[in-house]
Amino acid sequence: MNEAAITLDGWYVLHDFRTMDWASWKLISKEERQAAVNEFLAYLERLQQADEAKTGSHAFYTVVGQKADFMLMTLRPTMDELQQLEAEFNKLTIADYTIPAYSYVSVVELSNYLAGESDEDPYQNPYVRGRLYPELPRSQYVCFYPMDKKREGDDNWYMLNMDDRKSLMRSHGMIGRGYAGKVKQIISGSVGFDDYEWGVTLFSDDVLQFKKLVYEMRFDEVSARYGVFGSFFIGTILEDDKRAAFFEVK
Amino acid sequence: MNEAAITLDGWYVLHDFRTMDWASWKLISKEERQAAVNEFLAYLERLQQADEAKTGSHAFYTVVGQKADFMLMTLRPTMDELQQLEAEFNKLTIADYTIPAYSYVSVVELSNYLAGESDEDPYQNPYVRGRLYPELPRSQYVCFYPMDKKREGDDNWYMLNMDDRKSLMRSHGMIGRGYAGKVKQIISGSVGFDDYEWGVTLFSDDVLQFKKLVYEMRFDEVSARYGVFGSFFIGTILEDDKRAAFFEVK
Amino acid sequence: MNEAAITLDGWYVLHDFRTMDWASWKLISKEERQAAVNEFLAYLERLQQADEAKTGSHAFYTVVGQKADFMLMTLRPTMDELQQLEAEFNKLTIADYTIPAYSYVSVVELSNYLAGESDEDPYQNPYVRGRLYPELPRSQYVCFYPMDKKREGDDNWYMLNMDDRKSLMRSHGMIGRGYAGKVKQIISGSVGFDDYEWGVTLFSDDVLQFKKLVYEMRFDEVSARYGVFGSFFIGTILEDDKRAAFFEVK
Amino acid sequence: MNEAAITLDGWYVLHDFRTMDWASWKLISKEERQAAVNEFLAYLERLQQADEAKTGSHAFYTVVGQKADFMLMTLRPTMDELQQLEAEFNKLTIADYTIPAYSYVSVVELSNYLAGESDEDPYQNPYVRGRLYPELPRSQYVCFYPMDKKREGDDNWYMLNMDDRKSLMRSHGMIGRGYAGKVKQIISGSVGFDDYEWGVTLFSDDVLQFKKLVYEMRFDEVSARYGVFGSFFIGTILEDDKRAAFFEVK
Amino acid sequence: MNEAAITLDGWYVLHDFRTMDWASWKLISKEERQAAVNEFLAYLERLQQADEAKTGSHAFYTVVGQKADFMLMTLRPTMDELQQLEAEFNKLTIADYTIPAYSYVSVVELSNYLAGESDEDPYQNPYVRGRLYPELPRSQYVCFYPMDKKREGDDNWYMLNMDDRKSLMRSHGMIGRGYAGKVKQIISGSVGFDDYEWGVTLFSDDVLQFKKLVYEMRFDEVSARYGVFGSFFIGTILEDDKRAAFFEVK
Repeated sequence: MNEAAITLDGWYVLHDFRTMDWASWKLISKEERQAAVNEFLAYLERLQQADEAKTGSHAFYTVVGQKADFMLMTLRPTMDELQQLEAEFNKLTIADYTIPAYSYVSVVELSNYLAGESDEDPYQNPYVRGRLYPELPRSQYVCFYPMDKKREGDDNWYMLNMDDRKSLMRSHGMIGRGYAGKVKQIISGSVGFDDYEWGVTLFSDDVLQFKKLVYEMRFDEVSARYGVFGSFFIGTILEDDKRAAFFEVK
Repeated sequence: MNEAAITLDGWYVLHDFRTMDWASWKLISKEERQAAVNEFLAYLERLQQADEAKTGSHAFYTVVGQKADFMLMTLRPTMDELQQLEAEFNKLTIADYTIPAYSYVSVVELSNYLAGESDEDPYQNPYVRGRLYPELPRSQYVCFYPMDKKREGDDNWYMLNMDDRKSLMRSHGMIGRGYAGKVKQIISGSVGFDDYEWGVTLFSDDVLQFKKLVYEMRFDEVSARYGVFGSFFIGTILEDDKRAAFFEVK
Repeated sequence: MNEAAITLDGWYVLHDFRTMDWASWKLISKEERQAAVNEFLAYLERLQQADEAKTGSHAFYTVVGQKADFMLMTLRPTMDELQQLEAEFNKLTIADYTIPAYSYVSVVELSNYLAGESDEDPYQNPYVRGRLYPELPRSQYVCFYPMDKKREGDDNWYMLNMDDRKSLMRSHGMIGRGYAGKVKQIISGSVGFDDYEWGVTLFSDDVLQFKKLVYEMRFDEVSARYGVFGSFFIGTILEDDKRAAFFEVK
Repeated sequence: MNEAAITLDGWYVLHDFRTMDWASWKLISKEERQAAVNEFLAYLERLQQADEAKTGSHAFYTVVGQKADFMLMTLRPTMDELQQLEAEFNKLTIADYTIPAYSYVSVVELSNYLAGESDEDPYQNPYVRGRLYPELPRSQYVCFYPMDKKREGDDNWYMLNMDDRKSLMRSHGMIGRGYAGKVKQIISGSVGFDDYEWGVTLFSDDVLQFKKLVYEMRFDEVSARYGVFGSFFIGTILEDDKRAAFFEVK
Repeated sequence: MNEAAITLDGWYVLHDFRTMDWASWKLISKEERQAAVNEFLAYLERLQQADEAKTGSHAFYTVVGQKADFMLMTLRPTMDELQQLEAEFNKLTIADYTIPAYSYVSVVELSNYLAGESDEDPYQNPYVRGRLYPELPRSQYVCFYPMDKKREGDDNWYMLNMDDRKSLMRSHGMIGRGYAGKVKQIISGSVGFDDYEWGVTLFSDDVLQFKKLVYEMRFDEVSARYGVFGSFFIGTILEDDKRAAFFEVK
């Protein structure tokens, strides 16, 4: 009997990482740059309006190091809206001064590993809805990484039976719970959508908590034996005046 | 005794993924862009005529995320026609504003794992012909990924005997059958043609069914122990007015 | 006692894969393009003269998909001649409109796995000479891929003794023999010359035979347990008028 | 019981590797180059002032070979300061003549593997503080590499219990101690921050000591069985007049 | 007890592989090209003077295939001199028409695996000095590849004890000795300096000897079980008039 985990699926997610082509950006006039920034800020303002209308959510952060200069993460009820927002971004003037660095396509996901039994429709449960259609926080720091569960020799997550996976996930979840109030975590599933199986997005006002959380989990069997990790991206929030300042050059 | 699976082979397939060079595309005049789009739409119209004449089939979709901007999938009776269509595309004006992102060369394939015994010539069977020379659907969403069967240590698909492979494929096929009516699947073989052994193209009007199908299969032994997956591409259909709109910039 | 296979080595081989930079190619005048094509056709004609003088051999094919636009495969008695031909190609005008896509350096090789015992000097045997210094056919299709023999854990080809390797290669060779008359195969050794251990070049007038041959072999222990494969390139022949047409743009 | 190692965390670290675009750099006038170098030297002087105020530390070295031309390593009390320094660098004129080559984000780290027991607050211990908030030396040579602890089959560091890890780390530490006075080592943790788990930066006035240290450690079980290494970067110090000379072209 | 091999270390080595940007090179005038070549030939002449003064050594070869167009290998007593020579090369005009293709940083190394016991200071032994500070030959062909010793599961070189490693290396060395007079081999260590552990540079007047040597060794346990190989580069010597001819275009 196939014992695939059952998932609840919420909003679709696009993580879009971009590197600024600073040399080209400096070549255009101050006025052209200002116009391009204003156009982009208006785009971000439209995203913000969707946040307020609770028809979506977004987050806008720098990325520290050379992997990218900024990350724009957008959540919407349909894949079509993500495609349209991405196309709209590509047609902005500022996009011509960015180089695609990485992207990730997924959907907010809750698995049944930790769920109790219930006859209730989980999609009507306000707590569940709050997690499936999350309002992204405005924390100072963000951390994103994609991951797989390993399928190598004796370390094959997908050959474990449901009870073993449940028990492993429970102890894994306990570690996460220890960071409640310190780190907010969004898990999004990407099987069939992108190259890894999940994307993990962490938010915190204390950047060190990301390291503590991920390191503590690495000693837990779920990560130690079964975790396969992609690239890690770390950034600081870009809000208000910081946005224009970020794009300002001499 | 060598127990290689026997395949039936249909139309040759080229998946061609392209990224738009939006910055260069914006540099030319509105009239030049219009002419380039019209020329490309005429090319697509010729593909459509082959679909209607049942001398081939094609699908044209966006790709969500940075992996590509669009995918053009073309099926033809010979490899030569694919080569000619690709060369023709490269000589279109719009091609100068695209960057090759990924491609895949394969041939629609049915294996004998699930076949019953029969004296009939399968190539004359209308059901089989419908699968070997398929009319690609106009579903809202597409998903493409290439894959291999693993050959590592004890997890070596090609060292299993035919009966074991048949029995594993049967249970695998049962999962697929559960998605009948929801997901249409085209399997194309690429051994000797491209870097993975198969390409899988899924069509659906409900994008979430891709994730459910691929995730459920991953718990099945065929995928869990023997599946090796390449990149996943996900997109939305580009039809009618959406085509010109997709390429339109300010 | 070291039981390395003994090889017979023939002509040196350069596989040179190039992508056309179509956008730049379209930017120059029709006359400049014509001159560049004529210069290239004269280069190819010189290669053809060597074929006819039996002082070398060459093959010129398109490549289907984005891996490259064409492949030029050249065989010569010395590595120096390959270097000179490559340098000469790079100095042609058309080379400025190509982007290097992949190349492979090797030498035509026959191993002693399938050889009978004999006192004869194999280098004087006409059949052996025909294989070491081959006249490349003008088949409609070509397939190229590099490969290694695996050295991982219990699947270590190089730790097998000579008798086991001979017996494995014999059954492997039987599969190849089944394709006699349908597929012509050139094996070239690249240990010490390039990143894989062998290059395999297949020629056929029926492209599907490549897939059938490689797939059937994959179930044979030599490939199933010990084969490690690089990229596969597939193409159609470029002869006569097709050459100029290939490079012709509006 | 989860037995994750406990860490002490100090200053955040950005290793920023850049390749000079010498061809473009030569295209501008001597005066423009001089102005760009002066602006960059002023930036480095501000870094030096932070070193002297003990509010941070930095190191500036060439990189030998094609991996990069120079490395700028910066330590600061917060991730935000690193982000700001990176943004500031990108806006310098000289940055337009550099190509990002590699970067690494981490935080200076001490683990409890080698710590004795104590009731003291280690963050108040002057010796510990000297290691968490280090003044980078002005040694003639630098060596940087990122690393992971392996999690493969029986070689899974994270499945070992704390006592085994402690004992292994102790013998590993003994090797390091043998290089006291010859090599200064900064370990920085990057779990959750970058793609490897640690960055190792070594400083010495005798470049051969790097090779001796890393090679001797490789025979120790911690590295032999559990070490996974990324790229190694090696360079010579860029101080005083050498800086302007480094950027000077005819 | 740690049983790391003891090494003797000689001159530092930089292998610098470059691809010519032929299209740009053709764009400048014949006079500019001539001046750039003359400047480069003068640089090579200074290298030759160091060879003659026995204060270093160098080799200059083409590379066959697309991996690079030429390789410049330089040996010097200090890492600083290598850095300076590299910087000097980058500032030559011809460097603007090259694209970095690969480089390798190492130091000529002799290990104690094959050494007899002696009280003598090996650094004073003329034979040892000749190998640590070698005069690179002017053979017709060169072959370069980097390599590691494997650390995977049961195939972990660094977990073997010294006696086992010595015995394995002895039989490995026997193969090498069989090529005495045919192939000259320079082993350089790169632990801590570059991404692999060793670089191997082979010189011969018969290019086929590289293949024979590397292939024969591959069946020896040291390579078969423990060898991990990087890219292989193969080239022909560039001497005297051949140098100017190599860079000459119509």
